[in-house]
Amino acid sequence: MPLVDIHLLAGAFDAEEKKEMITKVTDTMVAIEGEAMRGVTWVRIIDVPSGQWGIGGKALTTEDIKALQAGG
Amino acid sequence: MPLVDIHLLAGAFDAEEKKEMITKVTDTMVAIEGEAMRGVTWVRIIDVPSGQWGIGGKALTTEDIKALQAGG
Amino acid sequence: MPLVDIHLLAGAFDAEEKKEMITKVTDTMVAIEGEAMRGVTWVRIIDVPSGQWGIGGKALTTEDIKALQAGG
Amino acid sequence: MPLVDIHLLAGAFDAEEKKEMITKVTDTMVAIEGEAMRGVTWVRIIDVPSGQWGIGGKALTTEDIKALQAGG
Amino acid sequence: MPLVDIHLLAGAFDAEEKKEMITKVTDTMVAIEGEAMRGVTWVRIIDVPSGQWGIGGKALTTEDIKALQAGG
Amino acid sequence: MPLVDIHLLAGAFDAEEKKEMITKVTDTMVAIEGEAMRGVTWVRIIDVPSGQWGIGGKALTTEDIKALQAGG
Repeated sequence: MPLVDIHLLAGAFDAEEKKEMITKVTDTMVAIEGEAMRGVTWVRIIDVPSGQWGIGGKALTTEDIKALQAGG
Repeated sequence: MPLVDIHLLAGAFDAEEKKEMITKVTDTMVAIEGEAMRGVTWVRIIDVPSGQWGIGGKALTTEDIKALQAGG
Repeated sequence: MPLVDIHLLAGAFDAEEKKEMITKVTDTMVAIEGEAMRGVTWVRIIDVPSGQWGIGGKALTTEDIKALQAGG
Repeated sequence: MPLVDIHLLAGAFDAEEKKEMITKVTDTMVAIEGEAMRGVTWVRIIDVPSGQWGIGGKALTTEDIKALQAGG
Repeated sequence: MPLVDIHLLAGAFDAEEKKEMITKVTDTMVAIEGEAMRGVTWVRIIDVPSGQWGIGGKALTTEDIKALQAGG
Repeated sequence: MPLVDIHLLAGAFDAEEKKEMITKVTDTMVAIEGEAMRGVTWVRIIDVPSGQWGIGGKALTTEDIKALQAGG
């Protein structure tokens, strides 16, 4: 306790960014809950395949995310 | 809000059927919650590998599902 | 198989609407997967407490959803 | 996309701390993924009742967490 | 690692049975994975409210489960 | 009902061990809930990719688990 699950569209972020999410989200949680909780703070990355995450009925692709990040 | 997660045995349905699930389940939800909610209605497909979904202790394979669909 | 989890903000929908979601989402799934799958099609409603669902860092309340449904 | 689920033992954190988790974890994610993603970044708090979260077979209570935070 | 989530219909099992599930499922997992993994084996109980778990479109109540357990 | 999800780091256990987890966790659950519940007891294995399961901010690899099992 706690457990944090970060769900991402597969391919939208690379291994380095995923690692950074694990490290920084852990630090953010520990800053609130107390340093003594670090060892029992679990943060996981869950991938959802491209085309299997729908918003408003439209299935997102990795390309859609890249366009959105670029300011689209 | 809302978020709908559809868990399927991998290989039991093809990309076209998955896309149809996202579209039609979104439409079904929006018909109940109101059209104004469409943009924040997320529907995702989560795959569980063949052999990793047990019913009554027996691990289903994609072939079991195909047989069940065929009326078995 | 399949399993469908519908996540809602608690209080945004009443018992009748939740029941309708279970019935109609089941029917939608069965229409795609085949009638033989009805008995193993599970649809669940998962409640998330008001104030615990954040979008863009802002925690939604049941009132926000009601306003959104009203066309806000 | 993305969706972040923060699972907590009910009673271990108050409403203010939960709100802070939503705000700060959102900011941490947006700092990595890009500001353009803020509107589609969802962060939720999921409560697990006291006594229903087991570590090594021992069910944690809210008091166990308080003791752990205090340096126990 | 590992994490085991046991989803139950609320009211179908009492606190003693839930505690037994946490203890015995942990023991079952540790017997397979090795005793050294006990401390990082988490087992949780997740409650789903009565009336919010549909099978074949019919929402189960706690009474349905009691009848099923009785051999119904 | 019930549904049990066993989350594992991908690669830490082989197909035979996963099958054993499904069989034995089902038996453990049925011993508590009653034999009549076997047919509606679902047990699934969910894989999390190596490097995507963080404990205390450190992303576990399959090798870490093997070392831990060996008594490390």
